[in-house]
Amino acid sequence: MREVVLSTGGSILLYDTSGPYTDENLRTDVRAGLPKLRAPWTAERAARAGDGAPTQLGYARRGEITTEMEFIALREGVSAQTVREEVAAGRAVIPANVNHPEIEPMVIGEAFLVKVNANIGNSAVSSSIEHEVEKMVWATRWGADTIMDLSTGKDIHQTREWILRNSPVPVGTVPIYQALEKVGGRPEDLTWEVYRDTVIEQCEQGVDYMTVHAGVRADYVPLTARRKTGIVSRGGSILAAWCMAHRRENFLYERFGELTEILRAYDVTYSLGDGLRPGSIYDANDRAQLAELETLGELGRLARDMDVQVMIEGPGHVPMHKIKENVALQKRLCDDAPFYTLGPLTTDIAPGYDHITSAIGAAMIGWYGTAMLCYVTPKEHLGLPDLEDVKQGMIAYKIAAHAADLAKGHPGAQAWDDALSDARFEFRWEDQFNLALDPATARAYHDETLPAAPAKQAHFCSMCGPHFCSMKITHEIRSRHGEDAEPVAV
Amino acid sequence: MREVVLSTGGSILLYDTSGPYTDENLRTDVRAGLPKLRAPWTAERAARAGDGAPTQLGYARRGEITTEMEFIALREGVSAQTVREEVAAGRAVIPANVNHPEIEPMVIGEAFLVKVNANIGNSAVSSSIEHEVEKMVWATRWGADTIMDLSTGKDIHQTREWILRNSPVPVGTVPIYQALEKVGGRPEDLTWEVYRDTVIEQCEQGVDYMTVHAGVRADYVPLTARRKTGIVSRGGSILAAWCMAHRRENFLYERFGELTEILRAYDVTYSLGDGLRPGSIYDANDRAQLAELETLGELGRLARDMDVQVMIEGPGHVPMHKIKENVALQKRLCDDAPFYTLGPLTTDIAPGYDHITSAIGAAMIGWYGTAMLCYVTPKEHLGLPDLEDVKQGMIAYKIAAHAADLAKGHPGAQAWDDALSDARFEFRWEDQFNLALDPATARAYHDETLPAAPAKQAHFCSMCGPHFCSMKITHEIRSRHGEDAEPVAV
Repeated sequence: MREVVLSTGGSILLYDTSGPYTDENLRTDVRAGLPKLRAPWTAERAARAGDGAPTQLGYARRGEITTEMEFIALREGVSAQTVREEVAAGRAVIPANVNHPEIEPMVIGEAFLVKVNANIGNSAVSSSIEHEVEKMVWATRWGADTIMDLSTGKDIHQTREWILRNSPVPVGTVPIYQALEKVGGRPEDLTWEVYRDTVIEQCEQGVDYMTVHAGVRADYVPLTARRKTGIVSRGGSILAAWCMAHRRENFLYERFGELTEILRAYDVTYSLGDGLRPGSIYDANDRAQLAELETLGELGRLARDMDVQVMIEGPGHVPMHKIKENVALQKRLCDDAPFYTLGPLTTDIAPGYDHITSAIGAAMIGWYGTAMLCYVTPKEHLGLPDLEDVKQGMIAYKIAAHAADLAKGHPGAQAWDDALSDARFEFRWEDQFNLALDPATARAYHDETLPAAPAKQAHFCSMCGPHFCSMKITHEIRSRHGEDAEPVAV
Repeated sequence: MREVVLSTGGSILLYDTSGPYTDENLRTDVRAGLPKLRAPWTAERAARAGDGAPTQLGYARRGEITTEMEFIALREGVSAQTVREEVAAGRAVIPANVNHPEIEPMVIGEAFLVKVNANIGNSAVSSSIEHEVEKMVWATRWGADTIMDLSTGKDIHQTREWILRNSPVPVGTVPIYQALEKVGGRPEDLTWEVYRDTVIEQCEQGVDYMTVHAGVRADYVPLTARRKTGIVSRGGSILAAWCMAHRRENFLYERFGELTEILRAYDVTYSLGDGLRPGSIYDANDRAQLAELETLGELGRLARDMDVQVMIEGPGHVPMHKIKENVALQKRLCDDAPFYTLGPLTTDIAPGYDHITSAIGAAMIGWYGTAMLCYVTPKEHLGLPDLEDVKQGMIAYKIAAHAADLAKGHPGAQAWDDALSDARFEFRWEDQFNLALDPATARAYHDETLPAAPAKQAHFCSMCGPHFCSMKITHEIRSRHGEDAEPVAV
């Protein structure tokens, strides 16, 4: 948690994802990695249970509260019992690989604060390892609750290692990307064995959740033929190509039980990928998407039966009037498993501003029950995000997530808005800046028109000037007539 | 309308607000003003009816279709009869002062495309006349359907004159600002006579709609006493101060009939101001706001009975779960008069990004039936918007308005999304850029990572690189197996 001290003498605690990087009293060393907070917890459990230690879901089901659950309860301001119950019911997940001791545990579920994921990762075209680690730290600085490493270029293993050892938040991946690199980029050359070995490699490293496109069944691929934008998920298109080339069922679907056993051994969480998500307003909520969603529900039940935690990924591009239906279907078909959605974008017409087209959809889908939002940056559809894009995407999505928390009536969410509104009404400019999602930008915008230090005490701002400040006039009315003024007789 | 020619040989017509400024074949001269498109139309009507020519509402009610209605029908892609019917029913307005012949007529109503207003205007603290005209042209360049001149400093009259003579879109004002300047900035010195003369001055100049805070009744002011942020409307606070100082009813409420007669003579449209709108999440949908809304409904009926067109202004700051209720109340209390809302902001925590906090609320409230959205720029609460802020505010709001048009199922709205999605799937990069809300930014973002000209023909982008392009893989699947591939047997 981060404490914001106010000029009134009070303070407010805000949820914080940045780990030790923003703690003045701690030094971090990228080469050494972060302190291993969870190491004693997992060691203690392993000592009791041996190699067969249960997953968080396993513990939750047997009524046992883990240290991770206690940590999360403190962060969320709820009881540890609530955390345990939500995990046990499959309505929440705690992505926490036993081999990733560096993270500060967090929970993803409708009963908790809406979370935001930031995608980073190099592609064949650009970027470097150091740069990706910097992006990860930067994303958590702006509030990323998890990050996904979507690297597809060379040095995938090494990039991931650096990110994992330095990340205070859970890390997700899409193993099929690395598996495809191993077979020279030819989808038809993929095999279960190559994929399995890749998953084990990543589990060993400490990846906390993995996107698995096991729901792209061969039968569903032709359902995309009349779409406007076909298949837009990279993983989905790779597996569709494999199915078509071999005229066989998706090997991830056929080997799902074996795969689940591997994930269970490390307590890695499934993020069941929506390989057939719509890539345009036209394709939203179509047969291909809903057929896959039904299969994701079936796979989710299988995984939970084996004590493996499950999230379900969602779209994509959805106009506003189809968002609620989308969430309702996901809840029904997937037994209330946490929904993890990309946006959705509510229109296709604004490339360059898709952090905004999608923040609209993200706020709404969060309100309707989505547990985690995958951010979209201004570069979506156009290029790879740089640090500024990561920041812009994160801020748009923290706004969406918090607006959703407010609308859901999450306990405590409104205290932040109230603190900022109080500061605004009382002309406490420094408090307003410090409480803002982006204090430096708020301060800079204020200073552009009223730069002098006295303006920080001014009872007006440059928008209206002193004569027209409505809040100043309100204060004058109140001071003359009292807060509890009775109606004037007219 | 603006025609976007595509590389396929086809083209798409998009609604355009920029008037002659973006027409290559026309020269504009700021000192001469724009051509007076409407002059012959109003002259012809005046010749028939003399000084007592009806308003657009008057004509609509007697079943007569004006040239303005025909113009609008072409722009909106509906019949002129539909325009007439919506205006006659009071569900739509055509803000078009007989003394503002330069505008291209437009309609504001739930049955039509959602509109966006841009606020401009200097304050006592900064700006200049030329700069405000430049802002007006710039705002319409980015899609402003109307602009409001909220100037409060010196040269109010002259600034407005320049804006009116050069504006291709209707211009709104808040006359109380200028009236207050005339009495030295002291609310208690305001009189009906000063206000009336100011309104006549502005009607003579050609202002198309006016915000009038006649609903701030003296009895309602104490309802704001326990609010977190009191009164945040400038006009509302000025009139509240007047009521408290004189212990009398709001003179605008008492003189509403006389005021309406003045507006009727020029066919100026009322924008009944929500002087008691909430200024924070905490204050949303409270008693003060709803009491005023009921009075706005009453005043709206009075005005329409006198053939004067009416819009109703709305909040402000509203969390997502209270937006629908807000619109439903407005429709019921105000007889479906067009709703014209500021935002609303869905959270208070992000000063510096309120174009985003409010684009979320604006998209939703537009979907629920709001006819026009007043934009919010990134500088809201902090300072005066510069040109870049105006652009950012406009783009966020054009996204919100279009997302709402899509969700409302407005005929033709989706053609734009479909054209862009088609271009995206077919890797027609230049078409994608040209169809984008902001072509230059889309192109620049693409070029940052893939600058070379051949990349404009590339069948992939820098996000995923050639091996991982899902759309490329989809094309390969389709070319190998045909668009109508039957399900594979598995």
